[in-house]
Amino acid sequence: MPDRNRRVVLAERPSGMVDGRTVRMEEEDVPVPAAGEALAQVRYLSIDPTIRTWMDDAPGYLPPIAIGEVIRSGGVAEVLHSNCDSYSPGQLLFGLTGWQDYVIADDAERAMQPLPEGVSPTTALGVLGITGMTAYFGLLDVGRIKEGDTVVVSGAAGATGSTVGQIAKIKGAGTAVGIAGGPSKCAWIVDELGFDVAIDYKSSNVSERLRELCPQGIDLYFDNVGGEILDACLANLAMRGRVVLCGAISGYNDPNARGPANYLSLLIRRGRMEGFIILDYVDRFPQAQAEMAGWLASGQIKSAEHVVEGLEHAPDALNLLFTGGNTGKVMVRV
Amino acid sequence: MPDRNRRVVLAERPSGMVDGRTVRMEEEDVPVPAAGEALAQVRYLSIDPTIRTWMDDAPGYLPPIAIGEVIRSGGVAEVLHSNCDSYSPGQLLFGLTGWQDYVIADDAERAMQPLPEGVSPTTALGVLGITGMTAYFGLLDVGRIKEGDTVVVSGAAGATGSTVGQIAKIKGAGTAVGIAGGPSKCAWIVDELGFDVAIDYKSSNVSERLRELCPQGIDLYFDNVGGEILDACLANLAMRGRVVLCGAISGYNDPNARGPANYLSLLIRRGRMEGFIILDYVDRFPQAQAEMAGWLASGQIKSAEHVVEGLEHAPDALNLLFTGGNTGKVMVRV
Repeated sequence: MPDRNRRVVLAERPSGMVDGRTVRMEEEDVPVPAAGEALAQVRYLSIDPTIRTWMDDAPGYLPPIAIGEVIRSGGVAEVLHSNCDSYSPGQLLFGLTGWQDYVIADDAERAMQPLPEGVSPTTALGVLGITGMTAYFGLLDVGRIKEGDTVVVSGAAGATGSTVGQIAKIKGAGTAVGIAGGPSKCAWIVDELGFDVAIDYKSSNVSERLRELCPQGIDLYFDNVGGEILDACLANLAMRGRVVLCGAISGYNDPNARGPANYLSLLIRRGRMEGFIILDYVDRFPQAQAEMAGWLASGQIKSAEHVVEGLEHAPDALNLLFTGGNTGKVMVRV
Repeated sequence: MPDRNRRVVLAERPSGMVDGRTVRMEEEDVPVPAAGEALAQVRYLSIDPTIRTWMDDAPGYLPPIAIGEVIRSGGVAEVLHSNCDSYSPGQLLFGLTGWQDYVIADDAERAMQPLPEGVSPTTALGVLGITGMTAYFGLLDVGRIKEGDTVVVSGAAGATGSTVGQIAKIKGAGTAVGIAGGPSKCAWIVDELGFDVAIDYKSSNVSERLRELCPQGIDLYFDNVGGEILDACLANLAMRGRVVLCGAISGYNDPNARGPANYLSLLIRRGRMEGFIILDYVDRFPQAQAEMAGWLASGQIKSAEHVVEGLEHAPDALNLLFTGGNTGKVMVRV
């Protein structure tokens, strides 16, 4: 049995990007599972923008991470030793592992769940995990995509955004426009993923390009970024257009992030802007996962994974999301 | 027959409040109705915040008023002379009269409509007109009010806001909170109109008061003002709360109006913010007017009218809406 557990804990709240002072690595004895618990070794961490929001001392859909507490994070862990019926050694579990080497799995609220048969850890964290489910329910339930819709998604080369565009095409979107940073990401989402067109926000005027590409306006905008791109999409909203609020990555590191100045487009165009939290849809994951697994198998959905090696690099992996250094789903192999 | 028609036309676009340079009074011959038209004399003008938005050279739900064009406005006019079957002398008509003494009524799009039997001009412009319909459909259709809801409305002593709070109570709101400026408006909406409680935004911290008064959060916020009050309501939104965007009077005179910085509450609380334009509901007015007329007759709905005398004072009447100088519906008697 191992004897030390490395844990990345919150040292101080960041005011911008996570840096050397934000977290510190601690070591403790490997926890010993009590009756009804299992000990699992963390294999992969899911690196998601929402982790950055949990580091702030602000109201959210989960409480802030406390100072000194391990960084909260989804992940996949392998059961080493079990004192309960729910888990058995060798099993791979998905759940909130935290940024650490070992985790205690129990039957409490948000218990860890065994991975479905034949699903790899990275797929479980990506297309068949929270990321893919977020794309699926955001587009179908919140955005209520209809055949022929002009759909725009930001963060389009990211884990969620890249899946949104592909599902939009499967569901009959007339045009799927992806907004991403840089020519290689833009080429990837069009050539590999089947988006109709990409807008490189780093080299073009997004609002002008949207006006050209969406002459009838945007029926459904899936927002991962907030900020100026949200404003550009609001300015180009179609009548009864919907804005799905999934995230606002442009503002998470900015304590002075501003609101969408063009929000009155919602009034003029009779639009709707609605937010959601994927945890509300957990009961419906199995049906969605089955549908997604079919699309994966048939090649209609492709996923890209960006794996960073080593627990100690988890903070850098998180920052990739904000610098745009990733293409597809960021994970850490512990 | 009269021989001169006074017309208030747009002289230059205002950058803030309407002032002496914004409009000018012109005179022309009284127009002569052609075959199929009628000549009507304007009796009352409906003074609404949206008129200010039409003065800007910005995209809206109707085109901007052109320079030199008469100021667009709802109103009630009396038929003097008719060359068509639709209208007869002595009849009172409602429609877009503009800020002028005389108007030609025809059968074109947005034709003027006869007032229902027994309805006074001011009621036709107020509770049974666009104002009341805006409150009704905004609350019921867009906001989907449910029994027990905690409802908050801003501009609560204004024409629409005062009606919203009263309908909310009729429809079973658990708490109806009105936000208004100054002690007399606050007393009026509680003592006369039956709001449960008022917040005087001029003398209190709106966000703190909302936290105290709505411990379970706001289920439905009917927004007439935008700005800081919208942000305060977003910060206090209940789970699955709805924000009905009716107007943003705090920003109409401010070219640098900002967006709601707290819009991500919609994400955390799974909220919805939706705009509407009352012109979309015209087909359903008769049913709503019948219900409203019943509430008026039974005393469940009270209306307040703020009548300004004289066409030449229409610009001042419009400014009252932005300085908060009115209680209830502002109209001009021509």
